[in-house]
Amino acid sequence: MFATIWNNISQQHPLVHCITNYVTVNQCANTLLAVGGSPVMADEPADAADIAAISNAVVLNIGTLNARTIPAMFCAGEAANAAGHPVVLDPVGAGASGLRTKTTQDLLAKLQFAVVRGNISEIKTVALGSGTTKGVDADVADEINEQSLPAVIALAQQVARDNQTVVAITGPIDVVADQDSAYVIRNGHPAMSRITGSGCMLTCLVAAAVAANPTQILAATAAAVAAMGLAGQQAAERMLQQGTGNATFSNDLIDALSHLNGDMLEQGARYEVY
Amino acid sequence: MFATIWNNISQQHPLVHCITNYVTVNQCANTLLAVGGSPVMADEPADAADIAAISNAVVLNIGTLNARTIPAMFCAGEAANAAGHPVVLDPVGAGASGLRTKTTQDLLAKLQFAVVRGNISEIKTVALGSGTTKGVDADVADEINEQSLPAVIALAQQVARDNQTVVAITGPIDVVADQDSAYVIRNGHPAMSRITGSGCMLTCLVAAAVAANPTQILAATAAAVAAMGLAGQQAAERMLQQGTGNATFSNDLIDALSHLNGDMLEQGARYEVY
Amino acid sequence: MFATIWNNISQQHPLVHCITNYVTVNQCANTLLAVGGSPVMADEPADAADIAAISNAVVLNIGTLNARTIPAMFCAGEAANAAGHPVVLDPVGAGASGLRTKTTQDLLAKLQFAVVRGNISEIKTVALGSGTTKGVDADVADEINEQSLPAVIALAQQVARDNQTVVAITGPIDVVADQDSAYVIRNGHPAMSRITGSGCMLTCLVAAAVAANPTQILAATAAAVAAMGLAGQQAAERMLQQGTGNATFSNDLIDALSHLNGDMLEQGARYEVY
Repeated sequence: MFATIWNNISQQHPLVHCITNYVTVNQCANTLLAVGGSPVMADEPADAADIAAISNAVVLNIGTLNARTIPAMFCAGEAANAAGHPVVLDPVGAGASGLRTKTTQDLLAKLQFAVVRGNISEIKTVALGSGTTKGVDADVADEINEQSLPAVIALAQQVARDNQTVVAITGPIDVVADQDSAYVIRNGHPAMSRITGSGCMLTCLVAAAVAANPTQILAATAAAVAAMGLAGQQAAERMLQQGTGNATFSNDLIDALSHLNGDMLEQGARYEVY
Repeated sequence: MFATIWNNISQQHPLVHCITNYVTVNQCANTLLAVGGSPVMADEPADAADIAAISNAVVLNIGTLNARTIPAMFCAGEAANAAGHPVVLDPVGAGASGLRTKTTQDLLAKLQFAVVRGNISEIKTVALGSGTTKGVDADVADEINEQSLPAVIALAQQVARDNQTVVAITGPIDVVADQDSAYVIRNGHPAMSRITGSGCMLTCLVAAAVAANPTQILAATAAAVAAMGLAGQQAAERMLQQGTGNATFSNDLIDALSHLNGDMLEQGARYEVY
Repeated sequence: MFATIWNNISQQHPLVHCITNYVTVNQCANTLLAVGGSPVMADEPADAADIAAISNAVVLNIGTLNARTIPAMFCAGEAANAAGHPVVLDPVGAGASGLRTKTTQDLLAKLQFAVVRGNISEIKTVALGSGTTKGVDADVADEINEQSLPAVIALAQQVARDNQTVVAITGPIDVVADQDSAYVIRNGHPAMSRITGSGCMLTCLVAAAVAANPTQILAATAAAVAAMGLAGQQAAERMLQQGTGNATFSNDLIDALSHLNGDMLEQGARYEVY
């Protein structure tokens, strides 16, 4: 199933409007281009609604949110909701500051999201309305492992139910859930946490996948998560072979996505469905 | 002739002030450094005029324009016009939103540009005052090919005449024109459209080339377009040899520019003059 | 001594809050991750104090300062000063515009900095209160060489004394000084001046080093400067071997930092202490 979902992206080349942080925005654009999508960035309120209206999906990433871009997020999100286009939220650093936590709550209250993707600390903040995130990385105390996995699935399903959305919690093991079922995905490599942007890139990939597969939001999100993990495995192999480090790994990750096709994803994806 | 034009860049190392989008700004800076220029970015209105005054050229790229950077563009453009330094416009996404179309019109009305560089959809918007651009990439309907080439040349010359500027329309075939003559340039590679930033980098390269060759704006623009296309061909060869993808290609493109000299450009440039 | 200082970074993995320019911000984040630190970027005044409070160090880099980020710098700096966390200043382009010179003076007047790192033109501007910097690169007239070295050391010590801080002046030869003593560091490679961001990355590295070694600010700054220079030497070797250029060099520089350990730094550092 992941094969068809994946191939739909390059066949439909969705235009994805990203309001995202300036740290990893270049990687976000190249990720979308790598898989056959098309990026457009526009974060001025007077520009955002027009751009969202012509796009096939919208990404709202609060990584470097500010007083100008927060209203632009609402403009873009409302335009996309009105047009029936999927909106994907990446609540970067929710729990690390009052502004990030509040903005996450406001966005969830006023917009309808197709998918919310974050690390375990960020999704806990979404569930609880407050958090103790250490910066923009997951707290060590919040590790996803075999012991904590049932609780993580339950958390994802609760947030999915409360917000009528699909939830992706990514980490050493990834969980993608709606209120009824869940994918547990075991692709990926620890090197992905030693670069900036692997989460942001994945969120853009999710947006492209759901835009190209609007009737299969849960499976399309799971396919995107598996694809990013598989690309991470391939880039880590290349890093070991070539003796490179995290900056080159970051490029190799996008390169690997550019070579990935549906059959490769179908064969390489490691997941269970609950 | 392109050899001398190209070598003038590294001999004069022009300082280029870029007000540009945050998606591809890092590539813009490294492109300028690769060819022996020097970049400086400043997009606060209170900073832009001072920086433009000490620079040898100004690039105005509206890719992620906002309420703060639009006034900064006018400050920088007016300071450069007053000092007689070339100003280059990249109307990214003109036609895709009301704000982008209007800002493009306002900039063209109030500032004198040495060069306007865009894709065919963006330049059509400049000509018509409205457009239907799909995001920031050219519409498929607007393809530049052998059949449409005479019309594209006529469009470039009309926009050049209307705005007293040189116009570069880039795509599968590139057209660089003033009101009297035109270069048709056949360098480049399709991989350049699978990365973000090839247009933005070219615009910065054009600014460096015209700053270093102020009496040959048309030829300097054509030389920059040919140089970027030639670097794209070399980077594409490397991508095929190494099995890499679009993220590495993006770096290889700048690397190729860093190795390009006047003789290589003279030999590798493929163009006709009308 | 540098070995222990360096190893402390990866053992304590400091969280570094960067308010920095959008040109090189991605490299700054990957540099911190490469050495075992953790980056967080937040430049909205309403966000900056919260993020600074949970961080171990703050970097204030004025490379693309604006009306929103300047107040955010004061919010973050005051929160860090109140918490006793080190704050590091990178006065990019001080002397090139009135706004940059004035902002540098205001920041130094109202905040206590652990370290100020800049090129010779920027540090001269700090000392004199005005300057003639050409953009964001050092003036040619301001070269650091064997002849000018005693004067450069005296300048660094004067600025250190006036601002009760450690001062790092980087260039062909690097000088790191407090009011009493000085390190002269002879690592590095000219290729580092042909990429954007080597200075910005170093400033972040200094912040990580002093956060992990709070009782040895001078030596930790010198260790970070030597480490960046050593990584530059290694990346330059790779560039020569592989025939690459400045864009790939930029990634190789961060890759080299990711492989550097305390023993390698101890052996590779080239410096004298005065």
